[in-house]
Amino acid sequence: MSESSARARALSGDTATEITTGPIVGSTKVYLPVPPPGTTPDGAAPTVLAVPARRIQLTNGEHLDVYDTSGPYTEGTETEPARPDVRAGLSRLRASWRVPDAAPTDRGTARTQLAWARAGVVTDEMRFVAAREGVDVELVRSEVARGRAVIPANRNHPEQEPMIIGKKFAVKINANIGNSAVTSSIEEEVEKMVWAARWGADTLMDLSTGKQIHETREWILRNAPIPVGTVPIYQALEKVKGDPAALTWEVYRDTVVEQAEQGVDYMTVHAGVLLRYVPLTARRVTGIVSRGGSIMAAWCLAHHRESFLYEHFEELCEILAAYDVTFSLGDGLRPGSIADANDAAQLAELRTLGELTQVAKSHGVQVMIEGPGHVPMHKIAENVRLEEEWCDEAPFYTLGPLATDIAPAYDHITSAIGAAMIAQAGTAMLCYVTPKEHLGLPDRDDVKVGVITYKIAAHSADLAKGHPRAQERDDALSKARFEFRWTDQFNLALDPDTARAFHDETLPAEPAKTAHFCSMCGPKFCSMRISADVRAYAEEHGLTSVEAIEAGMAEKSEEFVDAGGRVYLPVASS
Amino acid sequence: MSESSARARALSGDTATEITTGPIVGSTKVYLPVPPPGTTPDGAAPTVLAVPARRIQLTNGEHLDVYDTSGPYTEGTETEPARPDVRAGLSRLRASWRVPDAAPTDRGTARTQLAWARAGVVTDEMRFVAAREGVDVELVRSEVARGRAVIPANRNHPEQEPMIIGKKFAVKINANIGNSAVTSSIEEEVEKMVWAARWGADTLMDLSTGKQIHETREWILRNAPIPVGTVPIYQALEKVKGDPAALTWEVYRDTVVEQAEQGVDYMTVHAGVLLRYVPLTARRVTGIVSRGGSIMAAWCLAHHRESFLYEHFEELCEILAAYDVTFSLGDGLRPGSIADANDAAQLAELRTLGELTQVAKSHGVQVMIEGPGHVPMHKIAENVRLEEEWCDEAPFYTLGPLATDIAPAYDHITSAIGAAMIAQAGTAMLCYVTPKEHLGLPDRDDVKVGVITYKIAAHSADLAKGHPRAQERDDALSKARFEFRWTDQFNLALDPDTARAFHDETLPAEPAKTAHFCSMCGPKFCSMRISADVRAYAEEHGLTSVEAIEAGMAEKSEEFVDAGGRVYLPVASS
Repeated sequence: MSESSARARALSGDTATEITTGPIVGSTKVYLPVPPPGTTPDGAAPTVLAVPARRIQLTNGEHLDVYDTSGPYTEGTETEPARPDVRAGLSRLRASWRVPDAAPTDRGTARTQLAWARAGVVTDEMRFVAAREGVDVELVRSEVARGRAVIPANRNHPEQEPMIIGKKFAVKINANIGNSAVTSSIEEEVEKMVWAARWGADTLMDLSTGKQIHETREWILRNAPIPVGTVPIYQALEKVKGDPAALTWEVYRDTVVEQAEQGVDYMTVHAGVLLRYVPLTARRVTGIVSRGGSIMAAWCLAHHRESFLYEHFEELCEILAAYDVTFSLGDGLRPGSIADANDAAQLAELRTLGELTQVAKSHGVQVMIEGPGHVPMHKIAENVRLEEEWCDEAPFYTLGPLATDIAPAYDHITSAIGAAMIAQAGTAMLCYVTPKEHLGLPDRDDVKVGVITYKIAAHSADLAKGHPRAQERDDALSKARFEFRWTDQFNLALDPDTARAFHDETLPAEPAKTAHFCSMCGPKFCSMRISADVRAYAEEHGLTSVEAIEAGMAEKSEEFVDAGGRVYLPVASS
Repeated sequence: MSESSARARALSGDTATEITTGPIVGSTKVYLPVPPPGTTPDGAAPTVLAVPARRIQLTNGEHLDVYDTSGPYTEGTETEPARPDVRAGLSRLRASWRVPDAAPTDRGTARTQLAWARAGVVTDEMRFVAAREGVDVELVRSEVARGRAVIPANRNHPEQEPMIIGKKFAVKINANIGNSAVTSSIEEEVEKMVWAARWGADTLMDLSTGKQIHETREWILRNAPIPVGTVPIYQALEKVKGDPAALTWEVYRDTVVEQAEQGVDYMTVHAGVLLRYVPLTARRVTGIVSRGGSIMAAWCLAHHRESFLYEHFEELCEILAAYDVTFSLGDGLRPGSIADANDAAQLAELRTLGELTQVAKSHGVQVMIEGPGHVPMHKIAENVRLEEEWCDEAPFYTLGPLATDIAPAYDHITSAIGAAMIAQAGTAMLCYVTPKEHLGLPDRDDVKVGVITYKIAAHSADLAKGHPRAQERDDALSKARFEFRWTDQFNLALDPDTARAFHDETLPAEPAKTAHFCSMCGPKFCSMRISADVRAYAEEHGLTSVEAIEAGMAEKSEEFVDAGGRVYLPVASS
């Protein structure tokens, strides 16, 4: 019901694109004011900032505000949802924010969050993400300066609401979308972005290929409230008609400039696939499974030359620094199977990524490091340990990893196991995996399942790491569950619509949502109900300590039997 | 297609019950001979045994045999599936097996696997499970003797194919089924059992309540190829019309005898919920969430007496010893939320379960220990450590645990994360959780998703623990994936039907199943394809070591460009 009413039809020009808008059921979009800084460096008035949040209204009068990635699309009400004009794009939130002077780097000056953080400058982006995370802004600045966190925010993507990726902050998740040679359209891709952000994607990677790659990306960027990442070599390969051997530094460079100009916030660059590492993959069970990695391996072999990405890496840094595009150093040799995990090829590349991290940072360019892939549980922590040691604790950004290979069609689950564990160990962002992984293209439902599954993994890690806000939501939901506030339980869930639908399959009537039992046990056997009675009885009689209960309870037990005796609710079973 | 053809209609008497039969697609049921023992104690001819396996046939002429729990239902072919008579029940496999003389225990003698193992007797059940696991029979005997593994096999359930639960063996999973006061029928419950076993449930717990509880259980037991567990207090409570305060030892005892007579293989007994522990739950976020635990808590409070289960525990041991029913000592005070994990109530009960474990074993009764529940990741390992320390390493059998509370409708996933981790830490059996947990009654699809999800968790743990056979299947599937043997990839998957269906959504045509690309990247960008080309090229030119590739490859790179150059397949994109 709420889903259908929330799907407004945003008409723009002659293209009718259906964009999902309106609040998530039970919630309203709010903007919380950010405290102004004590002073600004030049004494100017500080920018007025407000961070988005989703306010979940509870039936007991309380509310819970949760981190929100959905952008302006969830403004309005169920009956009067937001009606964005996708052709015009989102408002340019950051256009009026302060841009500090260029800050010094080892190789000159740069206008990047890293360079500013190192120079002690607190940017509006840092203030925004600090308020969004509920942490002190100095923690943000110092982690960015240390290179242990990044704020991917291309100056040409002013529409985005800044966010931070780093192990000291909430674990983030990325959703991939992209048309392919086989199916899908531009309009579908924009809606997929809105849809992924709605359910909690913190960033989006546009992996589109094909003829309309530039236009698709433009639509996505102008409408994206979240940072957008790309893999520029895909478009570069299009430009040389799909022939890896025909790739050149110049074609690649021009592609990076084109995408940086459009506003791409971070780029995957497979600069660690070196010529001498390629043979290390020859005896693998699954060879090279990264598209970018295999393209670069093919180029290296064809030319018997070192990777042009590696050889021109400093020039690449200069381009990225000019826009404050963040590097996502790709793991082109990541394992594609349990058998290949943590092998020589993977680890050789990781060492090279560590070397490139130093080069990028010396140019003031922010860096994160991509990680696997397919890794059995006992080899997961080692990935984080080596990444932190070799890459100077640059934020780790991993795909899963899948903890087993034997469950295609359930790889969102096989990978959520690995993702939760690697995030607990320190990974800062998790790239989602959908149920269609290895099998086909994810549709709308798959994208949602992938995002929700990864929110579970990320949140589980936040709990395990003791993130200060994480347990609030667990406690609120469990309290609602114990008190039979069904509606609150649904609305506090990551996916209220599905939770409600599952409940209604068995007990569809509206009164069941206030019933003090559920369909699993029926009215007579409800442990929650019995437990509530036990608690009420114990508290009423002061039996809240071992001492109290041991101090003569015989007469009280008689009262308990007299006062109702049967602790289940005398509701007739249907 | 295979699903519908596999659903035979087993007509029995005047009741038409639809039971799912016939092989899983791509597989055939085989029975592998068990080597006879060197000698039998009395010189008699050894029982001829054969263990069931599922043989997955591959298109390259190879096959892989995997552990199989599905029973005779998967015999036959797709077109001529098995047609069991559910009214007659399965054949009584173990009826002809050797029953050794009673072996001495601390309190007399017993005919249990534990008593025999301690006396050095190798039973047919031990031989069977050793062959089924692919381990030496002495490992089985010694682990059972040590109390670190159990073989739940009531002598009155001869239909079952024995299995072993212990940390040195493959991690097992349990599926729960049960009618409820609100919905479902006996026929549905039997089919749910067959369905759960088909997809890999190692044991089944029948949690039925209501008027037909005895008859439902009889149908399930007579048709179950896997061990069946129950929670006798549910039926005992029925007998006193749902009033916990009216429960007595005598009613409970008679219920246990009734169920043991029927052939129940293991029973959950909440004998650790002591009077003095009840107040420890009063300030919890979610109180007591175990049905059995809340019933016993209510009884203790109502009578202000110690639990009759605790006080009569030795008599209970005598009954269970007589049938070789295994104890599953229930965690009636398990945490029902992240907030309550590892709290005083939970740990107090666990210590008492340790005490009861010693008592049970002194009677020759096999024991496992139930565990939580809801536990954040950083508190999971502690549960295993304490259980092993306090309960003398009796097999741990946990429900999940759920790593977060915030995702009702996805609790198969929240709990698979915890389940995989706790199994890696040493838990021997995992009780599944379906997507309907906390919300409603699982239907057929939910049962399947729950079982597959838990097979993933269990298998991931087997890999992490280095179980000797585990990685064979990962390697076979990954090899098939790399070689574009799509059909083999599907058939090696835990759920071949869904894997195939997901693939066919995007690329439905039959030729796509032999295509050297897939829908994710399309023909031009396939990394697997490029990687295969890289490998072929590297091997052809002897470039399989770092030395070789560094030793002058310039001329060879020219050959590579000449010999096709473009490493993608020149298939026209659609």
